[in-house]
Amino acid sequence: MFELNDIRTVSLVGTGNVATHLARALLKAQVRLLDVYSPHRAHVVEFARAFGCNPVSSLQDLTTDVDLVLLCVPDDQVSKAGTALSPGRAIVAHTSGIVGLDRLKPVGTKTGVFYPLQTFSKKRAVDFSAVPMCIESHDPETFDKLTQLAYKISNNVVAISSSERELLHLTAVMVNNFTNVLYSMANDILNEHKLNFDLLLPLIQETAAKVAEMSPTEAQTGPARRNDSLTLTRHRELLNRFPHYQEIYDLITKHIIKTYHE
Amino acid sequence: MFELNDIRTVSLVGTGNVATHLARALLKAQVRLLDVYSPHRAHVVEFARAFGCNPVSSLQDLTTDVDLVLLCVPDDQVSKAGTALSPGRAIVAHTSGIVGLDRLKPVGTKTGVFYPLQTFSKKRAVDFSAVPMCIESHDPETFDKLTQLAYKISNNVVAISSSERELLHLTAVMVNNFTNVLYSMANDILNEHKLNFDLLLPLIQETAAKVAEMSPTEAQTGPARRNDSLTLTRHRELLNRFPHYQEIYDLITKHIIKTYHE
Repeated sequence: MFELNDIRTVSLVGTGNVATHLARALLKAQVRLLDVYSPHRAHVVEFARAFGCNPVSSLQDLTTDVDLVLLCVPDDQVSKAGTALSPGRAIVAHTSGIVGLDRLKPVGTKTGVFYPLQTFSKKRAVDFSAVPMCIESHDPETFDKLTQLAYKISNNVVAISSSERELLHLTAVMVNNFTNVLYSMANDILNEHKLNFDLLLPLIQETAAKVAEMSPTEAQTGPARRNDSLTLTRHRELLNRFPHYQEIYDLITKHIIKTYHE
Repeated sequence: MFELNDIRTVSLVGTGNVATHLARALLKAQVRLLDVYSPHRAHVVEFARAFGCNPVSSLQDLTTDVDLVLLCVPDDQVSKAGTALSPGRAIVAHTSGIVGLDRLKPVGTKTGVFYPLQTFSKKRAVDFSAVPMCIESHDPETFDKLTQLAYKISNNVVAISSSERELLHLTAVMVNNFTNVLYSMANDILNEHKLNFDLLLPLIQETAAKVAEMSPTEAQTGPARRNDSLTLTRHRELLNRFPHYQEIYDLITKHIIKTYHE
């Protein structure tokens, strides 16, 4: 497909995990990265070297001759970064799961959201092809351009409004951050008894794989699901040395029993 | 390897998920299944037909000419089933994560545990090759035989004592049953707003894959990890219509903040 006016050049604000992973994916899709800015001077230089783009020392120094400025900054700085820009002809889009599009209103109409629904760590490469790219804009042309760009890096592009996006973000926190807390609890308990956390990895993978095939309600098993009070009592005893974990154990167990037995 | 006295014949007590998946794996490893018993007569007949073994109508009818009787019964019935058997020359092993080996003491010395650390559903095939098979016996010969049998179906065989096994079971409940509760919560919230749970699947898979490469502590991210109070407040508002979920959200969030910021 030959599009005369699709997004071919991007500048980035921010050099964290989201900026790093998006930069890698955009380069792979043959999008040109022009400038990069962040208040952390050392990070900017390192990032610019890694991705062959131009480090600039203030938001005002970003070139105005670019198709898109992507804001990859902390949630509470989206608004400030947006209004400090002189975007010229560029679209300005943020990449946050929780910040409303209206926070970019002062920037003009060519604004949008380009939110990858995934967890990123410096250490680990991510296959973008399946990552849901959540796109939003009130300007139809901007929406189309951001959608086209998203399809260059992912097969999973969806139109998501600001109010939908914050619900996705909330649930993403549950299935990612909170699930990881459960992994941490298990890790701590096993370590204390010199047992290897890796023993749980096949179960962890299978738990995640299962809900791609059946609903979480169908997939629910275990002592609380069966209301097996002997096992629940024994588990609580085992947690006596971890009172915070016992509290979390109790609350989730109570919730499962209420859901399936009341 | 040619072993004259390894386990070649198995009878099963129970016809649930564990029995079904173990039967499938044992047959694949060319172990012969002789008898099957369960108090649910219809299940026994169906199971026997599916796996080409012999349905019997009481524990006493199980043949005594078998190498191993595997108890795949609910946790609270292991002891009763064990003592009701006339095992003859057979080893008797249970498959429970939480029941101590000592519960089989009345059966004799040729007793053990053969516990697959995995979640099983009728609907979904499981690749046994990576499933940790947790083996225990006080009798060295029985231990060796159960270990050899486990290696026929898995590459991941470990000696695990009763006190270690109950800790593994507790942590398995956390990373499997409790994680699945978080998936359910996310599913409910998204459904209520006509958003597709499948949007979270890449994140769910990545969350599970990440802890194979880094510790859960390193993998922890998100608003509570950053103590981002604006986002936390907004999430709590979004949960106003789900008070039980709000309670779980609050407790886990408090725990993350305490862990990383106090």
